[in-house]
Amino acid sequence: MSGRYPDRVRRTADEAAAAGLEAVLVAPSPDLAYLAGYDPPPLERLTLLVIRPGADAVLLVPTLERPLALASPLGADLEVVGWTDGDDPYQAAARLLPGAGRIGAGDRMWASHLLGLQRAVPEASFTTASPVISRLRAVKDANELAALARAARAADESFRQICSTRFEGRTEQDVSHDLEDLLVRNGHRRSDFAIVASGPNGFSPHHEPGGRTIRARDAVVMDFGGEFGGYFSDTTRTVVVGEPPPGFPEVYDAVRAAHDAALAAVRPGAAAQDVDRAARHTIELRGYGERFFHNTGHGIGLEVHEPPWIGEGNDLVLEPGMTFSVEPGIYLEGRFGVRIEDIVAVSADGVDRLNRSTRDLQVVD
Amino acid sequence: MSGRYPDRVRRTADEAAAAGLEAVLVAPSPDLAYLAGYDPPPLERLTLLVIRPGADAVLLVPTLERPLALASPLGADLEVVGWTDGDDPYQAAARLLPGAGRIGAGDRMWASHLLGLQRAVPEASFTTASPVISRLRAVKDANELAALARAARAADESFRQICSTRFEGRTEQDVSHDLEDLLVRNGHRRSDFAIVASGPNGFSPHHEPGGRTIRARDAVVMDFGGEFGGYFSDTTRTVVVGEPPPGFPEVYDAVRAAHDAALAAVRPGAAAQDVDRAARHTIELRGYGERFFHNTGHGIGLEVHEPPWIGEGNDLVLEPGMTFSVEPGIYLEGRFGVRIEDIVAVSADGVDRLNRSTRDLQVVD
Repeated sequence: MSGRYPDRVRRTADEAAAAGLEAVLVAPSPDLAYLAGYDPPPLERLTLLVIRPGADAVLLVPTLERPLALASPLGADLEVVGWTDGDDPYQAAARLLPGAGRIGAGDRMWASHLLGLQRAVPEASFTTASPVISRLRAVKDANELAALARAARAADESFRQICSTRFEGRTEQDVSHDLEDLLVRNGHRRSDFAIVASGPNGFSPHHEPGGRTIRARDAVVMDFGGEFGGYFSDTTRTVVVGEPPPGFPEVYDAVRAAHDAALAAVRPGAAAQDVDRAARHTIELRGYGERFFHNTGHGIGLEVHEPPWIGEGNDLVLEPGMTFSVEPGIYLEGRFGVRIEDIVAVSADGVDRLNRSTRDLQVVD
Repeated sequence: MSGRYPDRVRRTADEAAAAGLEAVLVAPSPDLAYLAGYDPPPLERLTLLVIRPGADAVLLVPTLERPLALASPLGADLEVVGWTDGDDPYQAAARLLPGAGRIGAGDRMWASHLLGLQRAVPEASFTTASPVISRLRAVKDANELAALARAARAADESFRQICSTRFEGRTEQDVSHDLEDLLVRNGHRRSDFAIVASGPNGFSPHHEPGGRTIRARDAVVMDFGGEFGGYFSDTTRTVVVGEPPPGFPEVYDAVRAAHDAALAAVRPGAAAQDVDRAARHTIELRGYGERFFHNTGHGIGLEVHEPPWIGEGNDLVLEPGMTFSVEPGIYLEGRFGVRIEDIVAVSADGVDRLNRSTRDLQVVD
């Protein structure tokens, strides 16, 4: 067997062997979509891709979804084993597994399924499959990079367009709905988030857009993205309505400088945490260290948030083709927040910015 | 503390004690929405509601989501503890947990989080929290029943309207899009699924609507639903385009008889599996036993599929207020499928059908 999905399964088996895993188990999730091109919704009925070094991969599925599984891209290349309502699916899985040793479970598998598997194979020791699967997924191929770049451009265009709309006198929800519409109009299949956090609400990085009416001299953080051809966009810009609020320019400048420093730290051979340190050091020097209370970024691809995490403690070495966000921020309680976020790819010798929106402060009406 | 959410948390603690659990752990999921009215998306950063018998509940959240958690309905009634990127969230959770004993994990918690917790509290034994939480969630209160009835009526109206549209010569996808639009026009926030399985595609219960053009004499299975005020609709009807295909009338009649038998078996004091047996026995008597290869139903509420499972092996005793689907089906490979599905509530002395669409065979153009 050959092709994109069989290759990914084979590489997973190889990496599993190298990691000392007897098996890797993947339930419906972006991991399964990546490995098998099969993407059913996660449900209570167990669907499980079993990858073992030195053996053919097996897909265990509920009988009523067997036709779907057989029609999936990998359906012809692996054994599809059905279990029927009334059977114990975990015992069915156990028959495909070693009775002991280390078994890796995909990160997004539901606890109910993991607990069922642990009970069915009590002598095995379960661990995260992330060191195997996330490593593969982290390095994007040319098609994946093109898809992420397309999504980023559509998000950039949405930002350009939202800046020419009215902010003052409208609610956060109004602007958020406009952003969602723009994302779709610019090619996204759907908008997944469109944070609009005005004035003091900007203190909350994951603010839920609400009924607050945007006023003159508000800073407005907009963090938005969605799915475009299976891959995600995610970008943030902070704008001001007319004159900036007191103290804003130096904070904006600090975030932009941190963004610059982080971008400059992205290159093959650097560690993920080096990028975080570059941003954090810049912000600390300006006296806002305590106000930057999240990681500098996260991987992006088939999920909005996926490994690699760009934070302290992650010594993963960056490789060309890895894609992640760079999004330092400063949050002043009761006043405003500032965040600037671009998606970047590690290139052969540095960084390729997939978002290209201006980072010059935009003044909106 | 009093009110809907504090009451639910208190009852969870009581049930946990009765079940011999030292703690119940709930990550972002419908369980968390049910218990705390807090519904952030599940992400890699650990958010965890910790409920312990005899202690106040604690919500562990990423610092950057602390403002959101505090603003949630239960935010003022429980302790909200933040952990910051760079901390080990599982160690932070371990400080809130007993060092040993049985700990229940919510069914939808991600494996990555469960494995992290198991590592951080190695002496504890983790098990599913479902016997505690699912039992509470299974019995709906009056508000929840009203929401489910409203969603069911909107789905019924969508079915009535789709029957007067054209089927012949259009693709499954076309009809599926129409169904999605109708669900939304009739009040759903969104459509979550709109299976249209025509002719031989009806063999696949979870068929993905595709480019097949619907023809005269096709049977067409339509299984659709979505979210309406936080609760779900889910209904299925099978129609024919003009004359039914050969052998169809007796199969349709068998499914309808099984549906009748299952409805008649729903009453307080019966077991969940009694409802399945009633449907299955009817279909077996007509010689189609092997062609009915899934459970008769599933619970429904904040999730489309949730406990109780209406299948063999589930001796859960039905109580007034439990809501679930009744959906027997017969699937003939290469020919057609038939399924009829209604959502029902267990009433004080029998069954309350929330879907009321006619079950008489509808002939469409």
